[in-house]
Amino acid sequence: MIKVVLFDLDDTLIDTSKLAEIARRNAIENMIRAGMPADFGIAYHELIELINEYGSNFNRHFDYLLRRLDLPHNPKWVAAGVIGYHNTKISHLKTVKGVRKTLLALKQMGLMLGIITDGDPVKQWEKILRTEIEDYFDDVLISDFVGVKKPHIKIFQKALKNFGVKPHEAVMVGDRLYSDIYGAKNAGMKTVWFKYGKYANRELDYLDYADFQVRSLEEVVDIVRGLNSEEREERSDKEVHAD
Amino acid sequence: MIKVVLFDLDDTLIDTSKLAEIARRNAIENMIRAGMPADFGIAYHELIELINEYGSNFNRHFDYLLRRLDLPHNPKWVAAGVIGYHNTKISHLKTVKGVRKTLLALKQMGLMLGIITDGDPVKQWEKILRTEIEDYFDDVLISDFVGVKKPHIKIFQKALKNFGVKPHEAVMVGDRLYSDIYGAKNAGMKTVWFKYGKYANRELDYLDYADFQVRSLEEVVDIVRGLNSEEREERSDKEVHAD
Repeated sequence: MIKVVLFDLDDTLIDTSKLAEIARRNAIENMIRAGMPADFGIAYHELIELINEYGSNFNRHFDYLLRRLDLPHNPKWVAAGVIGYHNTKISHLKTVKGVRKTLLALKQMGLMLGIITDGDPVKQWEKILRTEIEDYFDDVLISDFVGVKKPHIKIFQKALKNFGVKPHEAVMVGDRLYSDIYGAKNAGMKTVWFKYGKYANRELDYLDYADFQVRSLEEVVDIVRGLNSEEREERSDKEVHAD
Repeated sequence: MIKVVLFDLDDTLIDTSKLAEIARRNAIENMIRAGMPADFGIAYHELIELINEYGSNFNRHFDYLLRRLDLPHNPKWVAAGVIGYHNTKISHLKTVKGVRKTLLALKQMGLMLGIITDGDPVKQWEKILRTEIEDYFDDVLISDFVGVKKPHIKIFQKALKNFGVKPHEAVMVGDRLYSDIYGAKNAGMKTVWFKYGKYANRELDYLDYADFQVRSLEEVVDIVRGLNSEEREERSDKEVHAD
């Protein structure tokens, strides 16, 4: 019997990659508008490389971009980048299509819901609070806060412990075959790979760990319903045999 | 002949103190709304003390607030504080009453305008760009970027050098008797003390350094006009005597 459905956050519940791309483009545009003498395409390409090298939570992207472009340090251009980035982040932050409908249906079926995510805890909570999806969830686990990163088994075990359920009573839904699917499967959970965003065709070495694949989050509702009715049938079969 | 008018930024051109107060109140309110078990008045008081002790550019105010309130670290409450603070900052950031009118009048009189401010260069530029007052100014000098703080004479001398004018050809307008007025007077400039915000009745030991006191920025236009016409009269007097 499935009692808990756990979701990854970025690119599963919240459209992070799409948002980040728009925010970065707007940042570069605003920097050029503020006088930064750079070509848009080159500057955008350098910014993406920089983020790949230093990570997305590095907080001096725009300073370093100027260094990479051989431009002098200029706080005005950096400020223009920060404004372009933050304005976009605040106005464009959105849930993935179907999220609220799916979460509501699962709650109505009596399930407990959780989030398991990596990333900076304050930034992750910002996304949850700004999109106002908090009330659907009974628990939010942020791996960085526990001191590990997915697919480390500890974060999945902590979720099971917090919810007081057995591994086979939990389903994990996520867009990353390695972090989410391989990780949750290792902890004994059922897994649903959400083929969405930039990882929709990557990390395929871990495909075997996915019990289900979906293109739309709303399919999760039917999967959970199916799993629970299968089990009910098996149980009633057993009861029949026991008679 | 006055050729340049220099302005302080915070609480002279931009209503920073009022904004900061609203932003901090909204931050605490949002933290309490997110579940932080604290009394509003106590939490606000602790936040103000903390900012006085650690400075307004310290970037872990909300983390430290939880420590001060003997509460466990909670990234959700911190995120709620950050959201409350930033939303307010972005939506409430405004120029002081009369700023645009004053700047426009001074430009129409053929004057060059500049900003001399302390503070984090990127944050100061954020304020200038967000309020869209940039185009009025021929130069923006941020003391932290030069490695000094007002009233250090170096920042005022740098302004004079950048504009290519003599000290007596520049007027400094600011709300701080010590940083702005004492500093600019030391560099030989004319000074206008803007009695505004929380410093309107403080640092009075430096009152002698103020050539003028105003309650409204728009008075600066008449002061500059007055200074320049006085000089014209003196000059024509001299010409008469020379005849």
